[in-house]
Amino acid sequence: MGRVVTPRAEDFPRWYQDVIAKAQLADNGPVRGTMVIRPTGYALWERMQAELDARIKATGAQNAYFPLFIPESYLTREAEHVEGFSPELAVVTHGGGKKLAEPVVVRPTSETIIGESMAKWIGSYRDLPMLLNQWANVVRWELRPRIFLRTSEFLWQEGHTAHADAADARAYARRILHEVYEDFMVNVLAIPVVVGRKTARERFAGATDTYPLEAMMGDGKALQMGTSHELGQNFARAFDITYSDSAKGVSHAWTTSWGVTTRMIGGVIMVHGDDDGLRIPPLLAPVQAYVMVVKDGEGVLPAAATLRDALRDAGVRVALDDRVDTAFGRRAVDAELKGYPVRVEVGPRDLAQGTVTLVRRVDGSKTPVAVDAVVDAVVRALAEDQQALYAQALKARTDRTVEVATLGEALEAAATGWARVPWAAVGAAGEAEANNQGVTVRCLVRPDGAVPDSEDEPDLVAILSRAY
Amino acid sequence: MGRVVTPRAEDFPRWYQDVIAKAQLADNGPVRGTMVIRPTGYALWERMQAELDARIKATGAQNAYFPLFIPESYLTREAEHVEGFSPELAVVTHGGGKKLAEPVVVRPTSETIIGESMAKWIGSYRDLPMLLNQWANVVRWELRPRIFLRTSEFLWQEGHTAHADAADARAYARRILHEVYEDFMVNVLAIPVVVGRKTARERFAGATDTYPLEAMMGDGKALQMGTSHELGQNFARAFDITYSDSAKGVSHAWTTSWGVTTRMIGGVIMVHGDDDGLRIPPLLAPVQAYVMVVKDGEGVLPAAATLRDALRDAGVRVALDDRVDTAFGRRAVDAELKGYPVRVEVGPRDLAQGTVTLVRRVDGSKTPVAVDAVVDAVVRALAEDQQALYAQALKARTDRTVEVATLGEALEAAATGWARVPWAAVGAAGEAEANNQGVTVRCLVRPDGAVPDSEDEPDLVAILSRAY
Repeated sequence: MGRVVTPRAEDFPRWYQDVIAKAQLADNGPVRGTMVIRPTGYALWERMQAELDARIKATGAQNAYFPLFIPESYLTREAEHVEGFSPELAVVTHGGGKKLAEPVVVRPTSETIIGESMAKWIGSYRDLPMLLNQWANVVRWELRPRIFLRTSEFLWQEGHTAHADAADARAYARRILHEVYEDFMVNVLAIPVVVGRKTARERFAGATDTYPLEAMMGDGKALQMGTSHELGQNFARAFDITYSDSAKGVSHAWTTSWGVTTRMIGGVIMVHGDDDGLRIPPLLAPVQAYVMVVKDGEGVLPAAATLRDALRDAGVRVALDDRVDTAFGRRAVDAELKGYPVRVEVGPRDLAQGTVTLVRRVDGSKTPVAVDAVVDAVVRALAEDQQALYAQALKARTDRTVEVATLGEALEAAATGWARVPWAAVGAAGEAEANNQGVTVRCLVRPDGAVPDSEDEPDLVAILSRAY
Repeated sequence: MGRVVTPRAEDFPRWYQDVIAKAQLADNGPVRGTMVIRPTGYALWERMQAELDARIKATGAQNAYFPLFIPESYLTREAEHVEGFSPELAVVTHGGGKKLAEPVVVRPTSETIIGESMAKWIGSYRDLPMLLNQWANVVRWELRPRIFLRTSEFLWQEGHTAHADAADARAYARRILHEVYEDFMVNVLAIPVVVGRKTARERFAGATDTYPLEAMMGDGKALQMGTSHELGQNFARAFDITYSDSAKGVSHAWTTSWGVTTRMIGGVIMVHGDDDGLRIPPLLAPVQAYVMVVKDGEGVLPAAATLRDALRDAGVRVALDDRVDTAFGRRAVDAELKGYPVRVEVGPRDLAQGTVTLVRRVDGSKTPVAVDAVVDAVVRALAEDQQALYAQALKARTDRTVEVATLGEALEAAATGWARVPWAAVGAAGEAEANNQGVTVRCLVRPDGAVPDSEDEPDLVAILSRAY
């Protein structure tokens, strides 16, 4: 069978583009940097949304929706924020056939416009914490776009919360970090992540503390999969978000923000994909079991439909492929490209012997299974393969991560993977030098792997690598 | 108890604004015409999305996502389309700090950009029908904005499909109209709708046939709650959406589009609301049963929590209000404003006698119910009150609809409600005259209420009224 996608070892970026095209995940849009998310890709996003939304709501947050258009003047109220986002803004100058009195920007993120509302809605300590989340599109003009990873428009959720004190804000930002994001990435996406703290240089524009989740892609580079930020009182002061309390009088609130985006789809592709295409973790997969009619004959179609129904009744997300007028080989390659976790191939010859073939995408194994044992076998395979994908990703990361003692060694290691190096051996000066060579400090962690409260803690470990 | 909202009879538009503010549904955004949808309002939209999305997917459509930004040149390819939307466009002229070579418009609707993708994706008849849906924000600059009803940015779903022939396109556009929209509006929103056909003058820009669903609001005006369109081959020709077929060679496809928006929230308010605030149909309500602790004492809190759990276990969407430090009267007024279908008031005195009070929002009735009968009573009340709201809305519409014979009588009737008049007595000239007086032909229906295939059918009935 001919090669359908460029092998990863030959050209990783091209492999990535090939997989996206062949699995029909997305296309480039007509305006530079925009993307069209096709049904196969969007179904992944819908599954991500469902899993994340339930976790976000379990923390007590409520969804809301704020306007796409923000007065240009709002952006300038927080000094670091405007400096960080100005180069990426899309600006609307005309509306309804007329030049606007004040240009409006298309939201690059919503801290400012949500800050304005929070200032109105929060009166007393009883209104706190105020926990809001929004599912929306945002725009950041990209000069070097890459589908899912860097696009001028992307989809995300952005959480915005206000708290009565710093400790409560910190506890909540970390709860999102661990209970929502880390739990989702590890247990649903099957992607091991390092959860740490950004250096001052890498912090979000306007934040006092930024906590990222970093994952290693199939080429050894890092991808920031999500972030949670403490914003201190920066936005509360800029937008006058205050609350009253009989003991303390009027105080500024403490705010947080946190987000994950459609870039996670790129992460799933680059962590789990192989030279045959996508591999989707079973808990994420919109279609977990793909029942294929090999060819028609001797009761094959009804048998396949019965299996489809039995799998669905067992809670498996299942689809039936009965397009017998298309060659089976072509459909099987397509199913591999699309990364369905398991395939159940139903053909006349097997069926005459009371079996079907179970094909597992994780390792390509093909096993005959008795028809009445299919549901159990599929359910077991899905559970095992979720674990297998995580284990493979963790092993790949471990194999490409080295412990080193100096910046020089770290930069060398970053050519092919991640370097763990004492932060004391890097420091702000070393970080600048690394940046000049295309290497960044992805995050700082404590020796035991925990998230630091400050970059000045002793014995911190820095993770250096190239990144998307 | 003091008046919280302006009575409807006194000033309906002000009543509408009061209800939105007091029920905390939405605020005006800082950019003129935009809105902030607050958690209470957004929860209604999430419920609408869930109910509609399931129905849309049941027709075989898949969700996808297309870019916010559309090259200005796309809009001009379909002559009626650009003429219809030009006055409402928001135009981005600057991105990433530079003036753009070609300005881009913020999508007012996505026929054009989806047409471009369909042209790429559709090759043969096997690719048809192609059934796509998108949940997104769109922008149409509004000179006279009104929250939920006319906003410069709104949320909606827009379906776009391509078919091999006119009959299939028509059947699908009507399936969406009846199985998705009408079913949802009647059975979930409890809003009676007239499903008909727009006149040529009122058709969507670029459509050959537009089918609206029209509802009567509490002041007798009409609100267009949604539309389904046949676009003929107009967009297929403009974007070269063709398919091949061994018998017919290469042909242009036939396309449809269809959408409903956050304006439906305004419809729910204006159909069901009363002088005490919102009334939310139980099947729509994010919170169906609101369990309130009247005041603390003698096991009230644990009893209320147990009832909450029992209701939740019975599949009721329930919330517990145990804010005993806020006066009960104030909380009860707030619960009425927010329109929770039933309240379960748990107080020490009732509880000592083994009862709680069931309050039904639909009629304000208060009934003592034995604690162990609460779940059954709530479930029954929810089912009954869903029907009661529909029946009240239908009666209100019937009472304010008159059958007349001439345009003059129709215009007179339209001052306070709807007029049903023979289309032959109106015609294009009469329609223009009505428009000059602020009255529109909402739709045409057959004498038996069915949707006409053309406005030239004999004996059609026109519905004339003022409208939002």
